[in-house]
Amino acid sequence: MASLFETKLAETAAAVQVRLDQLLPMVDGPEAQVVAAMRLACLAGGKRLRPFLVAESSALFQVPRERALTVGAAVEMLHSYSLVHDDLPAMDDSDLRRGQPTLHKTYDEATAILAGDGLLTEAFQVLASPESHPDPAIRIELTAALARAAGAAGMVGGQMIDVAADRGALRLDLPGITRLQALKTGALMGFSVMAGAILGCAGKPERTALEDYAADLGLAFQIRDDLLDCEGTASELGKPVGQDKTLQKATFVSLLGAEEARKKAALLVDSAVARLDIFAEKADLLRQAALFVLERRL
Amino acid sequence: MASLFETKLAETAAAVQVRLDQLLPMVDGPEAQVVAAMRLACLAGGKRLRPFLVAESSALFQVPRERALTVGAAVEMLHSYSLVHDDLPAMDDSDLRRGQPTLHKTYDEATAILAGDGLLTEAFQVLASPESHPDPAIRIELTAALARAAGAAGMVGGQMIDVAADRGALRLDLPGITRLQALKTGALMGFSVMAGAILGCAGKPERTALEDYAADLGLAFQIRDDLLDCEGTASELGKPVGQDKTLQKATFVSLLGAEEARKKAALLVDSAVARLDIFAEKADLLRQAALFVLERRL
Repeated sequence: MASLFETKLAETAAAVQVRLDQLLPMVDGPEAQVVAAMRLACLAGGKRLRPFLVAESSALFQVPRERALTVGAAVEMLHSYSLVHDDLPAMDDSDLRRGQPTLHKTYDEATAILAGDGLLTEAFQVLASPESHPDPAIRIELTAALARAAGAAGMVGGQMIDVAADRGALRLDLPGITRLQALKTGALMGFSVMAGAILGCAGKPERTALEDYAADLGLAFQIRDDLLDCEGTASELGKPVGQDKTLQKATFVSLLGAEEARKKAALLVDSAVARLDIFAEKADLLRQAALFVLERRL
Repeated sequence: MASLFETKLAETAAAVQVRLDQLLPMVDGPEAQVVAAMRLACLAGGKRLRPFLVAESSALFQVPRERALTVGAAVEMLHSYSLVHDDLPAMDDSDLRRGQPTLHKTYDEATAILAGDGLLTEAFQVLASPESHPDPAIRIELTAALARAAGAAGMVGGQMIDVAADRGALRLDLPGITRLQALKTGALMGFSVMAGAILGCAGKPERTALEDYAADLGLAFQIRDDLLDCEGTASELGKPVGQDKTLQKATFVSLLGAEEARKKAALLVDSAVARLDIFAEKADLLRQAALFVLERRL
């Protein structure tokens, strides 16, 4: 039987799917292909963990669910853009994602680049619309925070470091990997968790607690990702495995060993859970999200 | 002797250069390369026509110049991102831009893709910051308008059509070309002109006049571009010429002939100038910008 957490995660995923479908309607005209590609990139599934984080951090502050789902959809557009561009031949050159051909395989590189650009842009358009929040001051706070998470001091910077490391232009040590992942993965998870605090006009102690939770969670998530790359199977993950080792890439697992990496992830998840004490039982689903990150098989 | 227009255009270009330099500081750390590439892409020159349009439409409404320059810098970041991605091998595959190697030639494709992503993101961050305007409602209006101009219903959609036309997947007629250019080039010019109206809380008649001016100007600009491709020299333009003909690409010139295209551009500029009647002599520099578009050699 599914746990409450699994039920809620699936519910949010379904609701975000509906919202994404509404926010990205098909168009007629010769530009239809890029819109179809944008839809494929973000409607083709995924755990929707980031929108779940938006929804549950929003629930802490009684934010109306429709607003949280709108912001969650924007986060998912941004996440999808980053996957599409990361998969390109000039970057990670991946043919498979979630068990399906990557976007540049289904279409072509030009369409994939443009679809990524379109999703990045659309994420900001969604946040700027009154559907995310009626107060312009809240909307601009969301927009500025997302731009910070996505830019050169966040995802773009993290991916630049990752590309350099993949090419052997850079040997990363543990602090280096930790910073890379904080930028590449942690920044958007951080935004997802903080979005509820912004939408809910949370006070300083609540914001600090959520920031610390997100930092622990993001790092645990990435360590788990590295573990899955060496332990998981391609059919479980829907993408090739063992790539880190083949590339002789520095990861948490290569630097710490699998055993230590597992321990570190578990400690981070304990820490993440404890950060939420201030919210008492209201934050139970966020706590379970942290446990899920530790145990996930994909 | 330089005209008042030329002097003002050069002044704005210099001021935007300073603003861009401030808004994109170099960073230390292993992600420095993407920031250096972002800086190169938007600090390497150009006419800065779009920031000039922002500055002059802002001047109509007594908007403080610093705000206009900040928004102008955001527009230039967005424009630079579009050039970097359009030049990529998977798109137009251009080696030369403004007489210099394109960004993926100077660095590599991965860095160019990321630098474009970073500039697109940074443009939104700049608009969302209080330096563009102290009122969040104005900032969000700017952000939403820029996202509209940049997304699938604007530049991304226009570039998708252009790519399909380049590949011969699409034969464009005159309405088709006109729509392509309205999306690909016109939308950002339109935003640049409207930015002053947004920053200055302009009334409806002023907004309509500026919208109509921008539509005429954008189309005239693109017709001139097509004419330059068949008339200009590579050393004047800093990029290869004659490419449209080699590609057997439908352009205003191929569809109308050079003579008719020139006439059409001249009529559009007359129309653009007349749209500004409502502003009397206050709009003289915007009128001269339209004449400049008609006569420019690059």
